[in-house]
Amino acid sequence: MRRAVCSGSFDPVTNGHIDVFERASTMFDELIICVFHNVQKKGFFPIDQRVELLRQSVSHLTNVKVMSFEGLITDFMKKHDARIIVRGIRSVKDLEYEENEAYMIRHIEPSIDTIFLLTRPDYSFVSSSGVRELFRFHGDIHGLVPECVEQAMMNLDDRERK
Amino acid sequence: MRRAVCSGSFDPVTNGHIDVFERASTMFDELIICVFHNVQKKGFFPIDQRVELLRQSVSHLTNVKVMSFEGLITDFMKKHDARIIVRGIRSVKDLEYEENEAYMIRHIEPSIDTIFLLTRPDYSFVSSSGVRELFRFHGDIHGLVPECVEQAMMNLDDRERK
Amino acid sequence: MRRAVCSGSFDPVTNGHIDVFERASTMFDELIICVFHNVQKKGFFPIDQRVELLRQSVSHLTNVKVMSFEGLITDFMKKHDARIIVRGIRSVKDLEYEENEAYMIRHIEPSIDTIFLLTRPDYSFVSSSGVRELFRFHGDIHGLVPECVEQAMMNLDDRERK
Amino acid sequence: MRRAVCSGSFDPVTNGHIDVFERASTMFDELIICVFHNVQKKGFFPIDQRVELLRQSVSHLTNVKVMSFEGLITDFMKKHDARIIVRGIRSVKDLEYEENEAYMIRHIEPSIDTIFLLTRPDYSFVSSSGVRELFRFHGDIHGLVPECVEQAMMNLDDRERK
Amino acid sequence: MRRAVCSGSFDPVTNGHIDVFERASTMFDELIICVFHNVQKKGFFPIDQRVELLRQSVSHLTNVKVMSFEGLITDFMKKHDARIIVRGIRSVKDLEYEENEAYMIRHIEPSIDTIFLLTRPDYSFVSSSGVRELFRFHGDIHGLVPECVEQAMMNLDDRERK
Amino acid sequence: MRRAVCSGSFDPVTNGHIDVFERASTMFDELIICVFHNVQKKGFFPIDQRVELLRQSVSHLTNVKVMSFEGLITDFMKKHDARIIVRGIRSVKDLEYEENEAYMIRHIEPSIDTIFLLTRPDYSFVSSSGVRELFRFHGDIHGLVPECVEQAMMNLDDRERK
Repeated sequence: MRRAVCSGSFDPVTNGHIDVFERASTMFDELIICVFHNVQKKGFFPIDQRVELLRQSVSHLTNVKVMSFEGLITDFMKKHDARIIVRGIRSVKDLEYEENEAYMIRHIEPSIDTIFLLTRPDYSFVSSSGVRELFRFHGDIHGLVPECVEQAMMNLDDRERK
Repeated sequence: MRRAVCSGSFDPVTNGHIDVFERASTMFDELIICVFHNVQKKGFFPIDQRVELLRQSVSHLTNVKVMSFEGLITDFMKKHDARIIVRGIRSVKDLEYEENEAYMIRHIEPSIDTIFLLTRPDYSFVSSSGVRELFRFHGDIHGLVPECVEQAMMNLDDRERK
Repeated sequence: MRRAVCSGSFDPVTNGHIDVFERASTMFDELIICVFHNVQKKGFFPIDQRVELLRQSVSHLTNVKVMSFEGLITDFMKKHDARIIVRGIRSVKDLEYEENEAYMIRHIEPSIDTIFLLTRPDYSFVSSSGVRELFRFHGDIHGLVPECVEQAMMNLDDRERK
Repeated sequence: MRRAVCSGSFDPVTNGHIDVFERASTMFDELIICVFHNVQKKGFFPIDQRVELLRQSVSHLTNVKVMSFEGLITDFMKKHDARIIVRGIRSVKDLEYEENEAYMIRHIEPSIDTIFLLTRPDYSFVSSSGVRELFRFHGDIHGLVPECVEQAMMNLDDRERK
Repeated sequence: MRRAVCSGSFDPVTNGHIDVFERASTMFDELIICVFHNVQKKGFFPIDQRVELLRQSVSHLTNVKVMSFEGLITDFMKKHDARIIVRGIRSVKDLEYEENEAYMIRHIEPSIDTIFLLTRPDYSFVSSSGVRELFRFHGDIHGLVPECVEQAMMNLDDRERK
Repeated sequence: MRRAVCSGSFDPVTNGHIDVFERASTMFDELIICVFHNVQKKGFFPIDQRVELLRQSVSHLTNVKVMSFEGLITDFMKKHDARIIVRGIRSVKDLEYEENEAYMIRHIEPSIDTIFLLTRPDYSFVSSSGVRELFRFHGDIHGLVPECVEQAMMNLDDRERK
């Protein structure tokens, strides 16, 4: 069985991420979405809510699981017997960053490999930070994130926008 | 009447910015320079002084106005009936960042379009942050910023350099 | 009156080009589309047919003219009293090439300036050469080029595909 | 069964290609290496020899087949019931080119997806054209290509170096 | 006598840096490694320890000195009669950043020039921040930094990892 | 004695090249300018004239020699006991190309190293091919090339422009 992993902060998950999950889930027997828990940084949504929003957003994909993790992604993968990391890249700029990560991961654990998928062009401008920024200024986020995320953001009151 | 907008922090305005303003002002009937007021971040110069320094720096351009704004640039533009955003880019790296912004703006308000002007090569290394850094270490900023900005920086005492 | 110019080979014109023409035509009083006639190189379509296909493709834009030219674009522009060159860029890669062109043009004629528009993301992969290549292998070009161009290509017989 | 495809000219196949084949072959049930036959262009090695050299070079990979094809890769893939294209990229520059290809292929056939693998850093400078150039000037190609390719190149006489 | 300078934070020095020092030291009569002391920022290692670790790491290079400095690199260089700055670049992304620095330095002091060396491909993913991140999550840093740095990091207790 | 080499086609040499020669000649004891003789390609100027124009253009630099060569640059360098290649880069795009060359050269001959100098920003758009193109269309090349090159180009008659 081939198991792949998509890791990230997903704070919040966007429709660009969902597109990558849908495509990756057809390529491998199982896909684990790992929400990286950075204990040093307060997120926009708490880690548990991010996991929950992801679960709702990918409930139509039967071979996809959502988990959170701390520490090194390579340790997480060995524990779950996964050998393939899937990364969505929106542009050349993303690859420049991802390149270092991928080579570092190969150095740490040569049996783990990284593959890249290009985000759909019409989602290429959508990022979690862009969505948060737009929301902060009361811009319309409809169509950029899954419906459950849109709803969860609307439920925040104004103090939480900052 | 075609009205264009150059937005930014301009903290401080540099001669690279002035070059873009001069060129853009000949292309459209009116150019509004918008100083973005980020209420969450203390600037190098306060917002009012930035506006004032910009006004002095573009006083030779008769169809250019200077304003400040908070919030979404698209809201500002609709209010002032402007449809064109002008962005100066110094390099490919700048475009990578601007690209996302431009596509996000088109998503929010499809009637607003962004155009890019290349900074003059001899100003390609000049940025507001570079000027502040140079100033902090007592380097000579002459020729990188308008005279009124140079003067205003010289008037700061040493505590304010940090 | 402000007159802008879009120059290129347009062999053939694509829907990505049309998108740029439509947007540029709203920014300036008049837009001239210049088809560059490279006498040393046999095109896919002859120069006169390229001009004709462009005219049909932009017939809905009332302030747009189509012309062909040989020689330096700066000479053409001075003759037609135009001061602004509009270039569509699909990506950072395009800008790297265009950058040199724009600086060279400014060196030759400092009163002429170049502005860049980003191609719509969903047309970002469409190029004239890509369309020709796809056509050569009997792929479906529908939706990539204006209808009149699609028709003209279909009218070519197989020998002309090469 | 998931079947992936690596296509290219492989004229000649390099050790950078072999690294990508080895890694991709572990990710999918079957990998087909497709040698693109450009009938308009005389290659360095004839198409049949390229296929033969590839077969020898990947004989240790039991789920890998080598074939040649003309025409559109999407037609080839539908015929062989493959849905995943694997492309090795050596750098950001490669991605800029591959990006257009991948989006064009998705436009032609939305059910086919492209994934990218980063070449090992120590092979990042190795390309088929670089190997041919080095060989032409009597440089040592040892370690850049599989042994059977090195042997085949050594068997060429001097007229064929050009 | 030609004297060159490699400046940086070196927090900590990596094997990628050492590779650049070794190569640069053969090109010029003397090489000074300058550790930039940013008084506003608490480092991972204190400035004195960074200098000491560098000295141990380059003790095999007889024409290399290690110093720390505050302020403008151009002032440091004039004081030490050095005219050449050597910068290691790991990729195109690094150059984009370095380009601005180099042009700014030339503006401040035209007699000082910057040269760039490409990091060895197998160290291209190694950065000081990557090493710190890996260490923080208890990953193995062996082979990425000089032995004395590895030892010094191991001597830190867990509170200091953060 | 440290001897460096600048190689290229220099067809023709531009003021951007001269800037690099001037700066590199101060960094090393001797600089050899190597004009690469590609026997398979008819140049704009014949190889001997290119060498002669270079000699005139650098006659003010006392430690600079001009030679032509065929074959591998590494063979040339070993013969002339030179260990450093100096390459001018105008931009990130140039580096992407040069990177492969530099790593290939290190593979062939590990004792030879490549350094990069950034072209002056105001020459960043000047290339040999751009100069030839401009000349072909009767544009003014003054200021882009050394005077002797300008004179030599003016002496060509119109047939030779093509």
